[in-house]
Amino acid sequence: MTADPVLLTPGPLTTSLTVKQAMLRDWGSRDKAFIAMNARVREGLVELAGGKGTHVCVPLQGSGTFVVEAMLGTFVPRNGKLLIVINGAYGKRMAKMCDIMGRRYVVSETAEDTPPNPQAIAALLAGDKEITHVAVVHCETTSGILNPIAEIAAVVVKAGRRLLIDSMSAFGAIELDARQIQFDAVAASSNKCIEGAPGLGFCIARQAALEACAGNAHSLALDLHDQWVSMEKNKQWRFTPPTHVLAAFDRALEEHKAEGGVAGRGGRYRRNCRVLVDGMRALGFETLLPDSLQAPIIVTFRMPADRNFHFETFYDKLSAAGYVIYPGKLTVADSFRVGCIGRLDESHMKGALTAIRKALAEMKVNALKPAA
Amino acid sequence: MTADPVLLTPGPLTTSLTVKQAMLRDWGSRDKAFIAMNARVREGLVELAGGKGTHVCVPLQGSGTFVVEAMLGTFVPRNGKLLIVINGAYGKRMAKMCDIMGRRYVVSETAEDTPPNPQAIAALLAGDKEITHVAVVHCETTSGILNPIAEIAAVVVKAGRRLLIDSMSAFGAIELDARQIQFDAVAASSNKCIEGAPGLGFCIARQAALEACAGNAHSLALDLHDQWVSMEKNKQWRFTPPTHVLAAFDRALEEHKAEGGVAGRGGRYRRNCRVLVDGMRALGFETLLPDSLQAPIIVTFRMPADRNFHFETFYDKLSAAGYVIYPGKLTVADSFRVGCIGRLDESHMKGALTAIRKALAEMKVNALKPAA
Repeated sequence: MTADPVLLTPGPLTTSLTVKQAMLRDWGSRDKAFIAMNARVREGLVELAGGKGTHVCVPLQGSGTFVVEAMLGTFVPRNGKLLIVINGAYGKRMAKMCDIMGRRYVVSETAEDTPPNPQAIAALLAGDKEITHVAVVHCETTSGILNPIAEIAAVVVKAGRRLLIDSMSAFGAIELDARQIQFDAVAASSNKCIEGAPGLGFCIARQAALEACAGNAHSLALDLHDQWVSMEKNKQWRFTPPTHVLAAFDRALEEHKAEGGVAGRGGRYRRNCRVLVDGMRALGFETLLPDSLQAPIIVTFRMPADRNFHFETFYDKLSAAGYVIYPGKLTVADSFRVGCIGRLDESHMKGALTAIRKALAEMKVNALKPAA
Repeated sequence: MTADPVLLTPGPLTTSLTVKQAMLRDWGSRDKAFIAMNARVREGLVELAGGKGTHVCVPLQGSGTFVVEAMLGTFVPRNGKLLIVINGAYGKRMAKMCDIMGRRYVVSETAEDTPPNPQAIAALLAGDKEITHVAVVHCETTSGILNPIAEIAAVVVKAGRRLLIDSMSAFGAIELDARQIQFDAVAASSNKCIEGAPGLGFCIARQAALEACAGNAHSLALDLHDQWVSMEKNKQWRFTPPTHVLAAFDRALEEHKAEGGVAGRGGRYRRNCRVLVDGMRALGFETLLPDSLQAPIIVTFRMPADRNFHFETFYDKLSAAGYVIYPGKLTVADSFRVGCIGRLDESHMKGALTAIRKALAEMKVNALKPAA
C-alpha cells in the first residue's frame, strides 16, 4: 500500500489519521453509545450554525447531492415555486433536480466568474409572487467563487420568501450564522470543511419551517421531515446509518473545535489559499477570479497556452509525486483547479508548488499565460 | 474505547478488523487507483450474481433503502404498475415508496410468518394485464423468513412480467444466480452478507432492461440509469462516493471470495443459525418460524410469558456482556430477534448463549414458553 496522496480537491479530501482511526470500531445503530454519538454530532452542528434553540440538524445518508436534493424536495412544497440562483454546475444541478422532481422554478443566472446580483434577485421576487423559495450555492466550486449570501438573504427576507442554502464546500470554514443570516435550511456534508469521511450529508433547518414540511417530499429516502420526526421519536436513524462514517465525523467535529471552530479552520484554509495563489502567480499562472471573489476553498487556474502544457501529463506527474489536483469544470474558460481544504497546511501547499515547478520543467513549459 | 460489541443484528453488523483497516486511507475519487478499485468491486458483484456478460452493477451512495427506492423508481416506468409481494416491513416499505413516488401498485400480502404464494401471484398477474413489474423481498428480516424466489420468478416470467428483488439481507450468503433466476434487478448493500461497512448499496441489473430506463426515475440522486450511464462513460461516480466505505467493501469482497464465496459464507451462517436455534430451544425459547422457512440470517424468538422477563433488562444485560441483539418488528407476535450474520462464528453464538443463560438466571426467568 502506497502512502496517502495529498488530495488538493474539493472532496473527497485528505482527512487526519485520527479521523480515519475512528472507523476502526463497529457500532450497533440502535445501541445507546451510538445514539449518544449521533446526538452529540447533531447538537455540535446546530451550534456551529448558531442555531441553538431555533434550528435542528437532520443528517442523511449519501453524498452532498443527496442532501441538497432532499432539502429542495422537503422544503419546496409540490405547489411551491423556486428561484434558483446559478453561477456554476451546482446551481445548474439544482435546476435539474427540480426538472426531475417536478417542482416549478425560475433561475437568476450569471457567468461562472460573476457573483449573483442581489438587486436582480429582488426584482425577480417582486415580479413573480408565485415564488416561495430561493436556493443559492454558498461557494460554487465550479470556479471557487464565494457568493454574497448575506446580501442575498437580506433581499429574500425583505421580499417575504424563504432561503435554502447549499453550503456544501463552505460550511465549517466560512461563517454562516443563523442569528445573522435568515434561512430555512442549509445543506452540507461530512467530507468538506469539517474534514470527515464522505458518506453523510446534513441539513440545518429552522425547526418551525421544517415542521411545516410533512408530505412535501418526492422520495421516502430523501424526506428530511420524516427523517427528523422519526429521529426525534427514538433518537435512531430510520434506515441503516453509515456508522463508521458517523464515528469519523464525530471525531472530525472534535478536531474542528480544537482548531478554533470556523475561525480557526477558515484561517488555515486562507493561509493555504494565500500560499497557493501567490506561488502559482509567481510561476506565471493566472487565477480565474480576482482575490476579492475567491473563496479559500478551491482555486481555478487558467490553462497555459504553451503547447507543451498537456493537462493529463501534468496531472499524472503531480499524482506520481503524491499530489492529486482537479480538472476544470468551467464552460467560460479552459482551466484546472487546486483545492485548499482538508487536513493540509502551508507545508503541503509549498510541497505541491515544488512538484508543480518540477512537472513544468520536465514538460518544458515556459509560458504560463493563458490564451487570450 | 471499549472492545467492539458482537452485533447479533441484521446490520450494521460485525466486520473483520482487516475490512475496517481498509478505511485507513484517503482516496481521490477521480484518481486511477480508485477507479480501478471501483471497477473491481462492480465486476466482482456481477460475477457473484452469475451475471457476467448479461448484467451490470450500479453502486449507489446511502443505505439499503436508498437503493431499493432507486430500483423501483428507475425500473418501474411512470406509467407502469407494480405488484408488491408483502410479508413483512420491507415489503410494506416498498408500498410506501410507491405512494410517495406516485407509482401505481397492487399488493399480494401474507402474514409475517407465512411465505408468499406463487399461485396467488400468478392469478393476480393473469387478472391484471396492467401490472408490468413484480417486487419481492428475498429474506424478510422482519421475521427472518426465506421467500421462495425461484418459484416466484417462474410465475413472473411465465406471465411475461419483470422481477425486481430486494435481496438486501441475503445476497452473498444465499444463492441467487442470474443464469437460473430471471430478474431485471436485484438490490443489496455493502453491509450485509458481504460484511463491509454500511454506506453503500448496489443494484445488479440486466443490462438490456436497464438500458430502457432512461428518464423513469423520480429523483436525480436515486436514478440508477443515470448513475450507470455516467459511470460507464468515465468510470467515475456522478457524485462523491463514500471512498473509505468502498475500500472496505473491496476488501470485504476479497475476504468473501477467500471464504469460498456464497457457499462458504452461507455455510458459516447456517452453522451459526443451527447453534443459536438449538441452544435457544434447549433453554426453552420458541422460534417464530419452523426450520423449513427459516433463513440463516436472523432468527425471531417469541417473547416468554414469564412475568420476570423484561426485554429492556434482557437487552441491557446482553449489551453489557458485549452482545447486541435486536428488538422484534413483528405485528403478529411479541418477539425479539438474534442475527447470525457478520464476522461471527459458532464460538460467538455459544458465547451469546452463555450470556443469555446468565441474564435469564439473574432475571429469575424460568418459564420460557410464550403466551398462548
